Amino acid sequence: MSKRIHNFNAGPAALPLSVLEEVKSELLDFHGSGMSILEISHRSKPFEEVLDDASSRIKRLLKLDDRFHVLFLQGGASMQFCMVPMNLEVTGKPLAYTDTGAWSTKAIKEAKIQEKDVRVVASSEDREYTYIPKEVKLDFDASYLHITSNNTIRGTQWHRFPDAGSVPLVSDMSSDIFSRAFDPAPFGLIYAGAQKNAGPAGVTLVIIRNDVLARVPDHLPTMLKYRTFADKKSMFNTPPCFSIYVVQLVAKWLEETIGGIEKMEEINRRKAGLVYDCLDGQDFYRGTASSDSRSYMNITFRLPTPELEQKFIAEALAAGLGGLKGHRSVGGCRASLYNATTIGAVEALVDFMKEFARRNG
Amino acid sequence: MSKRIHNFNAGPAALPLSVLEEVKSELLDFHGSGMSILEISHRSKPFEEVLDDASSRIKRLLKLDDRFHVLFLQGGASMQFCMVPMNLEVTGKPLAYTDTGAWSTKAIKEAKIQEKDVRVVASSEDREYTYIPKEVKLDFDASYLHITSNNTIRGTQWHRFPDAGSVPLVSDMSSDIFSRAFDPAPFGLIYAGAQKNAGPAGVTLVIIRNDVLARVPDHLPTMLKYRTFADKKSMFNTPPCFSIYVVQLVAKWLEETIGGIEKMEEINRRKAGLVYDCLDGQDFYRGTASSDSRSYMNITFRLPTPELEQKFIAEALAAGLGGLKGHRSVGGCRASLYNATTIGAVEALVDFMKEFARRNG
Repeated sequence: MSKRIHNFNAGPAALPLSVLEEVKSELLDFHGSGMSILEISHRSKPFEEVLDDASSRIKRLLKLDDRFHVLFLQGGASMQFCMVPMNLEVTGKPLAYTDTGAWSTKAIKEAKIQEKDVRVVASSEDREYTYIPKEVKLDFDASYLHITSNNTIRGTQWHRFPDAGSVPLVSDMSSDIFSRAFDPAPFGLIYAGAQKNAGPAGVTLVIIRNDVLARVPDHLPTMLKYRTFADKKSMFNTPPCFSIYVVQLVAKWLEETIGGIEKMEEINRRKAGLVYDCLDGQDFYRGTASSDSRSYMNITFRLPTPELEQKFIAEALAAGLGGLKGHRSVGGCRASLYNATTIGAVEALVDFMKEFARRNG
Repeated sequence: MSKRIHNFNAGPAALPLSVLEEVKSELLDFHGSGMSILEISHRSKPFEEVLDDASSRIKRLLKLDDRFHVLFLQGGASMQFCMVPMNLEVTGKPLAYTDTGAWSTKAIKEAKIQEKDVRVVASSEDREYTYIPKEVKLDFDASYLHITSNNTIRGTQWHRFPDAGSVPLVSDMSSDIFSRAFDPAPFGLIYAGAQKNAGPAGVTLVIIRNDVLARVPDHLPTMLKYRTFADKKSMFNTPPCFSIYVVQLVAKWLEETIGGIEKMEEINRRKAGLVYDCLDGQDFYRGTASSDSRSYMNITFRLPTPELEQKFIAEALAAGLGGLKGHRSVGGCRASLYNATTIGAVEALVDFMKEFARRNG
């Protein structure tokens, strides 16, 4: 018998149970084709329908108008760290980046490897990336301004995106895409590894605006050019079919079961509120992010000692609450409350936290 | 109730039924973790075991000694067309390519986009890529010699690999890896999109030899460097976990159910023999590949008219035989007989072919 636990993994992470059950139920025979979704041709009608439906749903969910293309790539956000500067630089205009933690730092590093003119216009390195910079001043004409909308490791999140005027915003939204409503208009490009809020590992969503797509230089290798994916509807070569299929089911769940992004955001705020209230209501646990920069997706906290943290993580797992260990680079504890994590799971976590504090405080 | 058909797709293609059933049975709870394989962390012990086991099995299956690394990348063979020249060029030594069809031609194109010194040392373009060149003369010191071991579109296959002396062979083996035994020693690098013989779409196997790995330049973007994947055991960032997991199960099936590559080769020869005997035994069907260059994986053939070909494909599908349409660039018919296609499926195909010829000949 299968026994499911409450999953607070930072990514790959929890998926909606109904999505997993649908995958399971049709795994040997996809929509009457007599073949598994793992075996059908990417050029077949059933798969083209999957890809088109995934793309349409994402456009509706994020309220993207016709200027935006939804693309399915591979290689994760890390591949985007390299493709963004390669494709989006405008000659003579520096690349502006904000540095709000490990993933931003990596994005900056990849632009520098390509010997681009990179300018870090805001950083929270001075206080160990525990906050989001208030002021982002762009006093030059940049090719783009790059942000990491949510920082999984440090548990911080941009609650108001910086105003870059006519300079396109570029955002790594791997860990908070589909979690909250926002105006897509200022964004020239958004990318997201699917394995947190959008599906399983193995596919990267890229949303690119026409004017930014027009910048892509001709001489790039075919697979490193956004234009290839836009021109061929993500099917220049075999795409990661199964991962795209699960993304489609997750988007369907968001639209039809949850009722859209605004509803999802409401639930996510309630979930995070339960845990932050717990952190703020006692002295045993200590949240690590500045209160005005707290993430609704990843809640990072410490216990009085590393020994107690180990004990907490182990006892939580024994109680059916998994994935609570902090990122290996910073230690401590972390609860990731992505879209698929239910309120029931969060209530169980908070109950456990209170009870653990009582026993060990 | 699910009804399975015989699947002759060129890729994505048939997977062993026992593998699909195993995936299905543990989809909601992977090895007692209480989470789906789609939800577990790539840094967790259960996933590390999957990756290590996949890699060990591939090493055993292909008889790779310690000089070889097995890596899991993304982006398909098309991404390798760009990474190979970027990583493997030795200054002053031209890149040698053979041109045996569409995929070779694309590999050559990507090397040229990077303005490398590309030399095509053998080609079968003169007779529409219907044969494999007999003579490959390498009268200069090349960085490497690139071949496409099996040509899915034209139905041809290298039965004896060219002798390049001390120049490393590089091969795209997307459509015949694991199908036959060969000596890996002359190969500096082998790559294969998994979606034909190794698993589902979404992961690319790369096998690289130490001396060739040592060539990788330092200045490349991190995700385009083979060294990144070798140093971090394919886990610099989140790998395509689910696809790697299915590759592991396919490798296990090859070792434990089939009994290794030699056994698989025997079965594959028998399967292809059945179809080629059928083609050669009558005048209705006409094989398109030269008889000495025929592929054991993809059998391409024509019927007397395009109308009969359409009828053949439609009636075959109605009889439970899917995926028999030739590649859109060449037309005609094609039966792909990858490892997971059973002898029973091939017998059913041959029976149908004979019966169809009787009725329409």
